[in-house]
Amino acid sequence: MPDPRLAPLPTPCLVLDEAKMMRNINRLAARAASLGISLRPHLKTTKSIDVARRLLTGGHGPATVSTLAEAEVFAAAGVRDILYAVGIAPQKLDRVIALRRQGCDLTVILDSLEQAEAVAAASRAAGVAIPVLIEIDSDAHRGGFAPDDPTLIAVGRCLADGAELRGVMTHAGESYGVAGSDAHAAFAERERAAVVAAAEALHGAGLPCPVVSVGSTPTAHAVRDLSGVTELRAGVYVFFDLVMAGIGVCSTDDIALSVLTTVIGHQPSRGWVLIDAGWMALSRDRGTAAQAVDQGYGLVCDEAGTVLPDLIVTQANQEHGILACRPGSTAPLPDLPVGTRLRILPNHACATAAQHSDYHVLPADGAAALAVWPRFGGW
Amino acid sequence: MPDPRLAPLPTPCLVLDEAKMMRNINRLAARAASLGISLRPHLKTTKSIDVARRLLTGGHGPATVSTLAEAEVFAAAGVRDILYAVGIAPQKLDRVIALRRQGCDLTVILDSLEQAEAVAAASRAAGVAIPVLIEIDSDAHRGGFAPDDPTLIAVGRCLADGAELRGVMTHAGESYGVAGSDAHAAFAERERAAVVAAAEALHGAGLPCPVVSVGSTPTAHAVRDLSGVTELRAGVYVFFDLVMAGIGVCSTDDIALSVLTTVIGHQPSRGWVLIDAGWMALSRDRGTAAQAVDQGYGLVCDEAGTVLPDLIVTQANQEHGILACRPGSTAPLPDLPVGTRLRILPNHACATAAQHSDYHVLPADGAAALAVWPRFGGW
Repeated sequence: MPDPRLAPLPTPCLVLDEAKMMRNINRLAARAASLGISLRPHLKTTKSIDVARRLLTGGHGPATVSTLAEAEVFAAAGVRDILYAVGIAPQKLDRVIALRRQGCDLTVILDSLEQAEAVAAASRAAGVAIPVLIEIDSDAHRGGFAPDDPTLIAVGRCLADGAELRGVMTHAGESYGVAGSDAHAAFAERERAAVVAAAEALHGAGLPCPVVSVGSTPTAHAVRDLSGVTELRAGVYVFFDLVMAGIGVCSTDDIALSVLTTVIGHQPSRGWVLIDAGWMALSRDRGTAAQAVDQGYGLVCDEAGTVLPDLIVTQANQEHGILACRPGSTAPLPDLPVGTRLRILPNHACATAAQHSDYHVLPADGAAALAVWPRFGGW
Repeated sequence: MPDPRLAPLPTPCLVLDEAKMMRNINRLAARAASLGISLRPHLKTTKSIDVARRLLTGGHGPATVSTLAEAEVFAAAGVRDILYAVGIAPQKLDRVIALRRQGCDLTVILDSLEQAEAVAAASRAAGVAIPVLIEIDSDAHRGGFAPDDPTLIAVGRCLADGAELRGVMTHAGESYGVAGSDAHAAFAERERAAVVAAAEALHGAGLPCPVVSVGSTPTAHAVRDLSGVTELRAGVYVFFDLVMAGIGVCSTDDIALSVLTTVIGHQPSRGWVLIDAGWMALSRDRGTAAQAVDQGYGLVCDEAGTVLPDLIVTQANQEHGILACRPGSTAPLPDLPVGTRLRILPNHACATAAQHSDYHVLPADGAAALAVWPRFGGW
């Protein structure tokens, strides 16, 4: 039975199942507690104050963000301990200093001497010691120093003159490309080994390194040894998505986010059903394309949220999606008359959520009406 | 020399060169005038009242939209003649009727008897004759009847009972997949032949068909014969993009839209430059992937807008882009220190613009300051 609370919603729109979200939040919180590690959730997936209040201990942090706009919005909402986990551009230091002056303990990351010099100079000029984590490369994914790069020490020394060397961090983004907890645990160990080696190098040079930060959703759920690590970061686990299901971190039943859509046409000779959710509502993300099971632009559920066997969004135009059975399927195309409402599970929750201004929330407490939680964007 | 008006902008952000946009607008307007055909621009690319005022004759239309939210915003801004060119869902007819009652001449499209029955019933119930164009399939791209499908006549007869059969329309989306004006002209002829045949079938059954509507950006710029056609539609030509440049409809110098970004790091051993524009700022669109020249997630220009040879965004994470020379290039990686500002030309202007809330506009009149034009989203 479709939830009657969905009936008034226009389509396409974003539906969030709060009970599933809370289950996901509690799962990793319990795991972090059992590992005895501090969790610093990433707020870039949700960009929602309402979610942050449910996700962060006491609503205050610690938290991770991907833009200064997120830092500003969440700081204004009371989050006091924020890591801005994208390499700092010198032009952005004014906003960092303004946030710190407002009482938010904002930390930046960097991986070059140029950036360290800019942060130290800005810190001295403002009389505000900006805390820094040096980014370490654990998997050739994007930025960061190799743990044995001698520039690491030069950066640490440079920061000592006005800024604050707070520690090191890494993110094994390549862990998204492998399946299964053993493979994810191996990436977790690469994260751990890289930052612990970097911390030892800094300590060996007489430099401080109180924070040793690691994490990604796959590695956080699989990590076995956190010796030397002080905190764990993860983001997309709050909602989960088909990419995470495809590598075994969750099941499709754990995915808390879906796009509600309406059938608007058929091309029977081609086995197509047309819906009013195209890439504008689903995003262009094709993160499952390289996985064992390619989910197209999303996996189709009925309005109640039950997966329809083998039915995926095979093509997406701006405001049209085309549903068809996945290649090789023997499942019959279900009868879905014009006006039928469906829900699409996203490849990548961060990308799909970013296409929408609001979450239409099925409340965990069984309230009679949906809640609406706004989300924000921008930089 | 970078334009000094860009200096205060935070990155990433969306920059619009108004002079290039006006050149693109005037190019197709002049072509339509020389062909003696009415032009109905699609507003889904820009979603901007400021652009619509410069694009539409007198600011009032005719226009095409892809969502009812667009219809509502543009109607409130004075656009009076709007085609909603996505197959109508019965649940949306209340909003269509409300807009018509407010004085907007809004037309819907459909391609099934089910939809025609719903539109006729809603028209009768409201005492508002909703005008309809029947969608015709000219290229197996997505929706529409084959011109000789007998259901076309049944739909026309059904609409006569309360609604208004206003005509037929088609869109050769497959024209994006071929290069050169001869190939685009062949798709334009397929569009023309399909709708003219459908119009003749309706006329032959004694049904009216005053509007015969065709168009896409490639076919509109290449069409040679419009006999029997009454209007031409196109959308992305206002901004143009790398997909359109890749199939020869424009040059990269015609692309009016770019994403301003800042260099935030390097991985010299991998030939990488990291920037603060990832898929959140650029979109996940990879429309050039299947073209002769794959532009990755976008082609890199200096801050002045001059293309840097062979430098593309090869990878995109949420807030990180990775620049590298395209595979096979012998161009040296330019020296781009941290803090350097660049501009990225988009694969698909509709998708990239949708990631942003505002256009930062370099005014065509050479004004001393940038203009800010808001854009909207939603459904």
